[in-house]
Amino acid sequence: MARAESVFALSNGHVGLRANLDEGEPHGLPGTYLNGVFELRPLPYGEGGYGYPESSQSVINVTNGKIIRLLVDDEPFDLRYGELRSHRRSLDFRDGLLRREAEWTSPAGRTVKVRSTRLVSLTQRAVAAVEYEVEAVDGPVRIVLQSELVANEQLPGGAGGDPRAAAVLEAPLIAEAHHALNSKAVLVHRTRFSGIRVAAGMDHIIEGPEGFESTVESHEDQGRVSVTTVLRPGERLKVVKFIAYGWSATRSLPAVRDQVEAALTAARYTGWDGLVAEQSSYLKDFWDSSDIEIDGDVELQQAVRFAIFHVLQAGARSEERAIPAKGLTGPGYDGHSFWDTETFVLPVLTYCLPGAVNQALRWRHTTLPLARERAGQLGLAGAVFPWRTIRGEECSGYWPAGTAAFHIGADIASAVVRYVRATGDVAFEKEYGLELLVETARMWRSLGHHDAEGQFRIEGVTGPDEYSAVADNNVFTNLMAQSNLRNAAEAATRHQPEAAALGVDTEEMAAWRDAAGAMFIPYDEKLGVHPQADGFTDHQFWDFEGTPPEKYPLLLHFPYFDLYRKQVVKQADLVLAMQLRGDAFTDEQKARNFAYYERLTVRDSSLSACTQAVIAAEVGQLDLAYDYTAEAAMMDLHDLGGNTRDGLHMASLAGACIALVAGFGGLRDHNGTLAFRPRLPSGLRRLTFSMQIRKCLLEVRITHAGTTYTLRRGEALPLTHEGEDLVVRAGTPVTRPIVKPPAQERCGQPPGREPARRQPHAGVAGGGKVGSAPDHLAAE
Amino acid sequence: MARAESVFALSNGHVGLRANLDEGEPHGLPGTYLNGVFELRPLPYGEGGYGYPESSQSVINVTNGKIIRLLVDDEPFDLRYGELRSHRRSLDFRDGLLRREAEWTSPAGRTVKVRSTRLVSLTQRAVAAVEYEVEAVDGPVRIVLQSELVANEQLPGGAGGDPRAAAVLEAPLIAEAHHALNSKAVLVHRTRFSGIRVAAGMDHIIEGPEGFESTVESHEDQGRVSVTTVLRPGERLKVVKFIAYGWSATRSLPAVRDQVEAALTAARYTGWDGLVAEQSSYLKDFWDSSDIEIDGDVELQQAVRFAIFHVLQAGARSEERAIPAKGLTGPGYDGHSFWDTETFVLPVLTYCLPGAVNQALRWRHTTLPLARERAGQLGLAGAVFPWRTIRGEECSGYWPAGTAAFHIGADIASAVVRYVRATGDVAFEKEYGLELLVETARMWRSLGHHDAEGQFRIEGVTGPDEYSAVADNNVFTNLMAQSNLRNAAEAATRHQPEAAALGVDTEEMAAWRDAAGAMFIPYDEKLGVHPQADGFTDHQFWDFEGTPPEKYPLLLHFPYFDLYRKQVVKQADLVLAMQLRGDAFTDEQKARNFAYYERLTVRDSSLSACTQAVIAAEVGQLDLAYDYTAEAAMMDLHDLGGNTRDGLHMASLAGACIALVAGFGGLRDHNGTLAFRPRLPSGLRRLTFSMQIRKCLLEVRITHAGTTYTLRRGEALPLTHEGEDLVVRAGTPVTRPIVKPPAQERCGQPPGREPARRQPHAGVAGGGKVGSAPDHLAAE
Repeated sequence: MARAESVFALSNGHVGLRANLDEGEPHGLPGTYLNGVFELRPLPYGEGGYGYPESSQSVINVTNGKIIRLLVDDEPFDLRYGELRSHRRSLDFRDGLLRREAEWTSPAGRTVKVRSTRLVSLTQRAVAAVEYEVEAVDGPVRIVLQSELVANEQLPGGAGGDPRAAAVLEAPLIAEAHHALNSKAVLVHRTRFSGIRVAAGMDHIIEGPEGFESTVESHEDQGRVSVTTVLRPGERLKVVKFIAYGWSATRSLPAVRDQVEAALTAARYTGWDGLVAEQSSYLKDFWDSSDIEIDGDVELQQAVRFAIFHVLQAGARSEERAIPAKGLTGPGYDGHSFWDTETFVLPVLTYCLPGAVNQALRWRHTTLPLARERAGQLGLAGAVFPWRTIRGEECSGYWPAGTAAFHIGADIASAVVRYVRATGDVAFEKEYGLELLVETARMWRSLGHHDAEGQFRIEGVTGPDEYSAVADNNVFTNLMAQSNLRNAAEAATRHQPEAAALGVDTEEMAAWRDAAGAMFIPYDEKLGVHPQADGFTDHQFWDFEGTPPEKYPLLLHFPYFDLYRKQVVKQADLVLAMQLRGDAFTDEQKARNFAYYERLTVRDSSLSACTQAVIAAEVGQLDLAYDYTAEAAMMDLHDLGGNTRDGLHMASLAGACIALVAGFGGLRDHNGTLAFRPRLPSGLRRLTFSMQIRKCLLEVRITHAGTTYTLRRGEALPLTHEGEDLVVRAGTPVTRPIVKPPAQERCGQPPGREPARRQPHAGVAGGGKVGSAPDHLAAE
Repeated sequence: MARAESVFALSNGHVGLRANLDEGEPHGLPGTYLNGVFELRPLPYGEGGYGYPESSQSVINVTNGKIIRLLVDDEPFDLRYGELRSHRRSLDFRDGLLRREAEWTSPAGRTVKVRSTRLVSLTQRAVAAVEYEVEAVDGPVRIVLQSELVANEQLPGGAGGDPRAAAVLEAPLIAEAHHALNSKAVLVHRTRFSGIRVAAGMDHIIEGPEGFESTVESHEDQGRVSVTTVLRPGERLKVVKFIAYGWSATRSLPAVRDQVEAALTAARYTGWDGLVAEQSSYLKDFWDSSDIEIDGDVELQQAVRFAIFHVLQAGARSEERAIPAKGLTGPGYDGHSFWDTETFVLPVLTYCLPGAVNQALRWRHTTLPLARERAGQLGLAGAVFPWRTIRGEECSGYWPAGTAAFHIGADIASAVVRYVRATGDVAFEKEYGLELLVETARMWRSLGHHDAEGQFRIEGVTGPDEYSAVADNNVFTNLMAQSNLRNAAEAATRHQPEAAALGVDTEEMAAWRDAAGAMFIPYDEKLGVHPQADGFTDHQFWDFEGTPPEKYPLLLHFPYFDLYRKQVVKQADLVLAMQLRGDAFTDEQKARNFAYYERLTVRDSSLSACTQAVIAAEVGQLDLAYDYTAEAAMMDLHDLGGNTRDGLHMASLAGACIALVAGFGGLRDHNGTLAFRPRLPSGLRRLTFSMQIRKCLLEVRITHAGTTYTLRRGEALPLTHEGEDLVVRAGTPVTRPIVKPPAQERCGQPPGREPARRQPHAGVAGGGKVGSAPDHLAAE
C-alpha cells in the first residue's frame, strides 16, 4: 500500500500529495509535503567533535487536505470492511490526473460507486483539487461526505533501525488560527523549532439532488465540510474540492492566510474543468519536446515515461527551493537534497525543462552565505555546500560520508556549466553561475595542495562510492575538481567585470588553471587500471563468494570499517568519472576500468545501474547496458530497493533517461558540443528522443540501420556523430549509419549481484507516441 | 580546588577517594569511585551504523563516606566564611597518608584547630579510614561533629562541550536498604541500568572529654553519626572513622551488606594505628625495590615519586578489574580503560609490582568472551578488545578513533609477553597469556591479507596518533601485529598441549609466522623516512605558522576531516613504534624519522612527551629528552593539559618513569633480555633505579662517569650494556663507562609547541633516598 502511495504520488515540486486513499484509511504512510517545510531535530553524538552539525532538518507531513470521508447509511466507506466489488486507480501521464473507481457494498448491503480524480496543478503551484462523486447503485441510501483538513495526523512509527529511513516526527504543528465559512475552511499552524508558518485551506463546489445539506466547522487541528443527502439508485452526489497551501518563515499570519485564500479564489474561478484543461495543455507541451520513445519493449517504454513524469513533478515548480532525493513523494532521507539533484536530475531537466534547472541552481545560489560560513568553519576558502540539507545547512550526522564528500561542490559547478552551455543563458551565468563556479573553485584550491613534484593532490575526501570514505586522490573528485577549476577560470575570463566584483583577479584565475593542469590522477601501472583512490587496488577483495544474498545491502550487515578497507563498491564512482569526464580516459582504459569495477560493484545504491548502463554501452556491452537501463527504470515500479514506500528514487528515475540518452544515444556534453555515438541493444528496434538546446529542438531517432538527426525547432545546430562534425539544419534531417562497437565478452559482477537479464516485454507490438501505449499505471 | 582534589587523591585501585575536604564543601568535584561500578548510558548517533555500540559505561560517584562536618557553636566550619588562620595539606609517599591541619576562627570569633589524616588501605582493600581531631583554642566552645554517608551527592554540571570530559550522571543510585546502630551505619543501593549493588558502611571510635554524646541515624541516601560536646581551650575531640565498601552485580543484598560489615569489623579490630602501620610497612617494601632516585633536580625527583606513588595507587589492588586511564582519581574519560594501561602503566608495574600486572591481564582475560563476540560482529576471527571500556564492552561512540584502533590487541599481547619474560610466570602464560596471544594473533591474521606480491597488509586501521585515522599499513600497528603473531606462534610452540586445547594446530602457527615474516612496512625512499601509514608523507603539512596558541588542542578548534588529511601528529605513533619495536629500525632511520616527526608532533595528548623523551635520548638529543621527561612528570602537578581536575593522567605519570628508565637508562626489552644504553643529560648528576626481574632485584646506578649494575637480590642476571653481554652476579657489581652518543642538532618542533626548556631545580643539593627529600606535596 505504501509503495503504491509513492508510485501514484502527485506533485508539482511545490506541493506533493502521496496517493493516500480519499477516505484517509487504510494507509501505508500518510503524506502531504510542502517544499521547504521542515522541522529541526537535534543531531546527537556519542562522541562529539568540532564542526559537527548540531541539528538536522526533517521534512514533515503537513495538514492533510486530501481527505474526503464517505458514510453510507452511517457505515464508513472502508476497503477493509464490506465487499469491494471493484477498485482501480490509474495515473495518466498525458493529463496528470490520478483517477480512481470503486464499487463497494457496505456490511449492511448497500452498494455505491465512487469515482474520484485528483490533481496537483502544474499551472497554479499552490493548488491541488479533487473531483469526488458517489453514486447509489441500489438504494435509496443516506450519504454523508466529510471533506476535511487534518493537521498533526498520527503516523505509523518505527524505522526498524535502518539509518536511511526518515525520523518520524510526531505532531510537529502548533495551531495558530482557524476559521470556517460556507464551504470553506482555513487552518494556520507553525512549526515548533524551525518557525515556519503553514496555512492550508479548502473550498468546495457541491452538486447533488435537490435538498442536500452542507455544514462547515473548524477546530485547531481540523476543518470539516459535511454534505448529506439521500441518493436513489443512479443518483449522484459530486464534490469538487479545491485545496491550497501557503507557507513562510518570515511572513505574518494574515499574509500567509490571505495567500491561501487568494489561491482558493483563483482555483475556484478557474474551476475543475479549467484546472484539468491547464494541466493537459502544460503536459502536452512538455511531452511534445521531452518524450523518449522505445520500440520493442513496452514495459520499458512505460517505465521510462513514468520516470520522466516523476522527474517533471519533482522539478516543475520547485522555484528556488531544493529538489529532494525523493521529490515530494515520501519522507525518505528526511526529505533531504543531495548531489543526486545536480548529477542525475538536472542533466535530464537541462534538455527538457531548462527553466527548472535555472530555478534549482538559483536555490543553491541563495544558500551561498551558509556555504561560505561552513567553509570558514572547516578552514577552507570559498563555499562548502552541504552533503544533505533542506534549507542549506549541513544536516549530515556522520562526517566521513557527509562533510568529506566535497565533490558536491564540483557537481553543482558541473550542472551550472551544462545549463549555461545548453541554454546560452548568459544573464544567469553572470548573476548566479559565475559566483557558484568561483566559490567552488576557491574551495578546491584551498582543499588541495601541491606536492614536492608539483602535482596537485586532494586528500582525505570521500567520493561517490559510500563503501569507501576519506581517501586520497579519489579519481572522480580530482577530475570533477579539475573541470570546476578550469570552468571557473573560463567563466571569469568571459565575464571579467562580474568576476572582479567577486574579488577574482588574474592571479587567482591562474592559480585555478595551474592547479587544474597539475591535478594528480592515480593510475595502477601493474594492473593497468585507475584505482578509485590512492591505494584502492592494493586493498583486500571483499569476500563476495562468502556473502549470501540476505546480507545485502551490505551496510546493514557489516561495519563501515570493514567495507571501507576492502575492494567493494556500493555505486559507480570511477565508472561515473568515466561518464562525466570521459575525455580524461582512453577507450582502452574505459574498457579495462569498467571490467575491473564491474566485479566489485554491488549496486547497494540506486545511483549506480544507470551509470553502469552508460559505460557498458560505451565499451560495447549493449545487452548489459540494456539490463542496467531496465533496472534503473524499474527501481520503483518493481521496488528493487525495498524502500519505495518512503518515496521514489528521483535520481534513479532520471538515471533511466540518462541510460537511454547517454548510454544508447551515446550523448556526451563535455566540451560545449553535443557528441553522439548511438548504438542499440538487440532487444530494441528504435529509440527516439528530443532535446532542447539553445533555441533548437533536436530529435534523435536511432534504429539498427542508422541515426537520423532532425531539427524540429531552430535554424541550425552543430553536433558530432562518432567524432564527425555535423550541422543539422531546419528541414534537412541528417542520417548516419550506426557504428557497431567491437564485440566484447560480457563483464562479470559479484555473485548474486548480476542485473536481471532483460526479457523484452514486446508482446504488445510497437511503443509509439504518448497515448498509443498503456500509459496509465494500474494497481490494486 | 578540583585540581588539588585529583593530585591528593587516595586509592588502592579498588576504592578511590578524591581529596575533597572532610566537611564536604566547598568542593571542586566530589568523588568516591569503586573499581567496576558504573552506570550504562545510551550512545546516540545522528546516523547509526551496523556494529555501533548501543550504550556506554560511565564511572559514577558512589556513596560518599569521607564527610565529617564540624559545627563550632552552631556555625559550620567552612573555609569560605570566618577567618582561615592556616591551612595545609600534605601527602606523604612513605606512609600513604593525606594529612590536613587547619586553624580557623568562626564568624562569631571562636578559634579551633582541626587535624585530619586519611588513608585508603593498601592491605585491606575495601577499607578507608580518617582520623579527625578538633581542638578548642579559645573557648569554651560547643562542638558538633557529623560523620556521614551521603548517596547521590549533587555534582557540579556541564562539561563545556569538551568531548573528553566525562558525562555527568545525576542520582545514579537507587536505595535498597539502610540501617544504623550505635556508632555504625550502612547504606545499600543499586544502579538503575547496570544493576550493580553497592553497600557503603562506616563505624567510629570516639575520644573526647567526659560527657560527650553521640547519636546515629540512617535514611535512604544518608547515614549520620553525630557527636557533641563542649571543649575548653586545649581540649580535643577525636573521631576515628572506618569506611568500607562492597559491590557486586550478582551477589544478594545480605551478602554485599555483610561483606561491608565484615570489612568494618576487621578494620576496627586492626584499629587506626594498625592500619597506619600496615600502610607504612607495605610502602616501605614497595619503595625499597621501586624508587627512582635523581641527583640534580629536586623538583623532578619529587614529581617522579609522585608519579610512582599514583601508578602504585592505580594498580595495587585492581584485582581482575581494569586500571582506568585516570585511575580512581576522577571521572575523566568516563572512567574508561584504554590501551594506555598495557602500553604505559603495565611496563612500569611489570618491574616493580608484577603481581598487579598479573591481575590486570587476568582482567583482560575475563573479557575474552565479550572480545570474541565483538570480533564475530566485526567479521573477524579471534578477539577484538574494546578501545574504551569499564567492564569489557566497546564503549566508543566514534568508530574511526575507536573500533578502528585495532592495535589495542597487540598492545595487550605485548604486555603479556613482557610480563612473562620478566617474571618467568609459566603458570600464568599457560592459563591466561597463551589464550590472549592466540586470540589476538587470530584477529590479526583475519584482519590483514596478502597482496599479489605476497606482502601482508593491514588496511583501514587507526594507529596511536588520533590526528590520523583509518589509514593503510600504519607502521606502528603492522610492527606490533608482527610481534603479536610471532609471539603467539612461539608461545604455542612452548605450550603445545594448551595450544591444542585452544584449537591451534601447526598450520595455524605457520600462518602466523608467515604473515609476520611477510609484514609490509611502508618506507618513503625519496625522503628516507617511514611514513606513519601509507601515503602519509605525501599529505599537505599542517599550517603550523598560521595556528595561534589558543587554537590548541587542535581537536577542539578544527574538524577531524582537516586533521586527518594533513601531516600533523597528536601523539607519538611512528616514534612509539621506534621505542617498542626498536629492533625494526636502524640507528640512522631512527634519527631521521625522529627529526621528521618532531616537527609535526603537537603533543595535544598526554601520551606523547614520554615517548619523545625515550627516542630523543636514543638518538642523542639528551637535553630535549630531559625537557620531555620533565613535561611528562609535571603533566598533573603543573596541570599542563588543563584537565587535571577530571583526574590524573596515569599513562603520563607512568611515562615519566619510562622516560627515565628507557630514555636515560636506555632500557629495551625486545627479545627477552634486558638491554641498556645509559646516558645522562647535563642537568642530572645521577639516576638510580631498581627492577624486579624473575627472582632478582637489579639496581642500575648511572652517573656521567659510568653505570654500575648491582644485584640486590638473586644470584645472577644476564643483560646487555651498549650491546655487550654481561652477567651481573650477587655481591659483584659491574661498572661500565657511559658511551656518549654523537652530538646532534636539536630537533625543531611546531612553532609554539616546543617543550619548556628544563631549568634544573637543584637549589636543594642532592636527591637521595626516600625521606631525605621533600616528599610531601603541599597545597593551599
